[in-house]
Amino acid sequence: MADTGGAFVPGTEVRIEGRAGGPLDGLTFAAKDLFDVAGLPTGGGNPDWEGADAPAGRHAWAVETLLDAGAAFIGKTVTDEVSLGILGESAFYGTPVNPAAPERVPGGSSSGSASAVASGLCDTALGTDTGGSVRVPSSFCGLYGIRPTWGRLDLGGMMAQAPSSDTAGWFARDAETFARISAVLLQEAVPEALPARLLVAADAFGFADAAVAEALRPTVERLGRIAGAVEEVTMAPPGLSAWARAQRTLQPWEAWLTFRDWLDRRNPRMAYSVARNLVRGADIAEADRLWASMLRAEARARLTRLLPPGTVLCLPTTPFPAPPKGLSISEQEVLRTRISVLASHGGLTGVPQVNLPGAAVDGLPVGLSIVGGHGADTSLVALALAMERTQ
Amino acid sequence: MADTGGAFVPGTEVRIEGRAGGPLDGLTFAAKDLFDVAGLPTGGGNPDWEGADAPAGRHAWAVETLLDAGAAFIGKTVTDEVSLGILGESAFYGTPVNPAAPERVPGGSSSGSASAVASGLCDTALGTDTGGSVRVPSSFCGLYGIRPTWGRLDLGGMMAQAPSSDTAGWFARDAETFARISAVLLQEAVPEALPARLLVAADAFGFADAAVAEALRPTVERLGRIAGAVEEVTMAPPGLSAWARAQRTLQPWEAWLTFRDWLDRRNPRMAYSVARNLVRGADIAEADRLWASMLRAEARARLTRLLPPGTVLCLPTTPFPAPPKGLSISEQEVLRTRISVLASHGGLTGVPQVNLPGAAVDGLPVGLSIVGGHGADTSLVALALAMERTQ
Repeated sequence: MADTGGAFVPGTEVRIEGRAGGPLDGLTFAAKDLFDVAGLPTGGGNPDWEGADAPAGRHAWAVETLLDAGAAFIGKTVTDEVSLGILGESAFYGTPVNPAAPERVPGGSSSGSASAVASGLCDTALGTDTGGSVRVPSSFCGLYGIRPTWGRLDLGGMMAQAPSSDTAGWFARDAETFARISAVLLQEAVPEALPARLLVAADAFGFADAAVAEALRPTVERLGRIAGAVEEVTMAPPGLSAWARAQRTLQPWEAWLTFRDWLDRRNPRMAYSVARNLVRGADIAEADRLWASMLRAEARARLTRLLPPGTVLCLPTTPFPAPPKGLSISEQEVLRTRISVLASHGGLTGVPQVNLPGAAVDGLPVGLSIVGGHGADTSLVALALAMERTQ
Repeated sequence: MADTGGAFVPGTEVRIEGRAGGPLDGLTFAAKDLFDVAGLPTGGGNPDWEGADAPAGRHAWAVETLLDAGAAFIGKTVTDEVSLGILGESAFYGTPVNPAAPERVPGGSSSGSASAVASGLCDTALGTDTGGSVRVPSSFCGLYGIRPTWGRLDLGGMMAQAPSSDTAGWFARDAETFARISAVLLQEAVPEALPARLLVAADAFGFADAAVAEALRPTVERLGRIAGAVEEVTMAPPGLSAWARAQRTLQPWEAWLTFRDWLDRRNPRMAYSVARNLVRGADIAEADRLWASMLRAEARARLTRLLPPGTVLCLPTTPFPAPPKGLSISEQEVLRTRISVLASHGGLTGVPQVNLPGAAVDGLPVGLSIVGGHGADTSLVALALAMERTQ
């Protein structure tokens, strides 16, 4: 068997042909092991996950949609346990390779999907993004990646984590492929018209490593030339860290609600850090959740006001490129928290976001994100395409 | 390979002969996988425990002492992860059989040691008892078992959990063998003289299931006839549950201190319940620990006053016989807490305790414990021997 860099879950490299003549005919895809694929177990990244006990009866909506459009399925990819993780190291399945930075993590939780696409094993791969799980590996591996508008895609057959933040996303190496897949999964043609106004999130750039902000500057300038009008704004007036703290109050509690019956019944094996975050989720106070939900409503209103149709916002996807593998829990916790400061607006407000690859710090990829208002998904894809065409 | 009921850690069934002509010549023993055995890894019940990476260089003191006395080592036994567990179900190594109740748990954390002895695979086996890990499986499997006076044995080469409560103990099927092994490990001959006064812990009997108290009554009566004077007492004036709560405040905090560097560095795989208890341990407040230590000092003074030389106290070892396997975490938590009410005085005060088998509820073994003052270990063993001889 060819070396697949640990991207695939062992035993799931099964080919399922897509429908002939569809718009994605000739393309191949993989699916994060949170998506049901008929005939294969849904392992969820944990050896004791209940889906691992029996093959799924039917395909998840996203899998079915790609097959219907002609893409061929080639395997299921490794994920952080029950999607709880942002660096992409799995205590059970190992760490999928980041081909752009082999000594570094790939990012997670859609680690295997990003790894498979970045390694050229398939053209696209399905991931999920609750708190950054598509955007972060896109940035670390140098890929196009999308977190769609929350609620836009049918999540049938996809394992839930925190339902009010969960989305299904995907990766590609080039914008043309990315646009073809996006049109199918978003069920909307990629428009010709491009956003006419670019907002630059000064608070987000200020939070990222200076080297990252510097590396992204040429991409921002090119974006500005395409969009026309450029304006610096403060994305989160109360602070991005306040938004992140609200999301880290709401999301772990929801994850706890999602998993608590399984935990109680099965007492699964887990990496200590994953178990710890679930225990901490259970401990979040009702009053804290209430105030976090107030902040969430304010954040949604803020981004709605900031992002009318035709306006996009850009920010660094991650504050730094991929960190080294094998750090301690406490070292990772600082990184995880910093990542969440730049990523939490997604789960908190539900706006769509696309990662644009191309920049690097010391040879390590780092991505620039474009964010639109609710429903602006294809507009972001159009801008990604225009950026690649004018490169 | 013969069916060993899941008692042994795979790959550790290696025979090491004892010194010829010693007092234990002809006997065989196993050691809980918390004890170093030269040439074998010390797995600690967790696949990511650091001792599992390389064979130990030398025997633990208790292992060396048994070998020196002529007993032959035959294998290492399954334990609850890093000795944190009281029911004896392991997510990684399975549940060693309780031959007296095959559908039930064996009790833990010295589950494999109790199982191996109860199944007749060896004459004795080393266990550890921090919060009940020898006493509880002795009760559930119907064995003699001892938790020695805290600080009496050299714990060199034995994995720590909560050092101010940790002890090394052992199991046997009959009192004669139990006495031979005890004399060697306690390094003191078993005396002829027997305790002359028996205290019956009315609060402990009141806490146990009525059926357990009833089943133990004949054993208590026989004990009384041997000891002469019998008196009912309240063992813990503030309540056994107050003592247990103090111990469950001090022990998990100490366990956290023991394991936190390893957890942070290694991020080990663990059963969710084990991880949860470590996380909860880390959260215990300093003020709570301070008051618990006050209660500990009072409890020590209480048992010292209650148990002068020549006096023993008896109580049910466990409030019920072995529960079924496969219960949920929340179901187990209630049982675990009830067990701790009858077991916490050991770790809290350091007094020695011996479990006497023989009674049963609906065919399931349940043990009566005899407790002495600090250092009265061989006196308890002498009483166990006298009980068996007069049966």
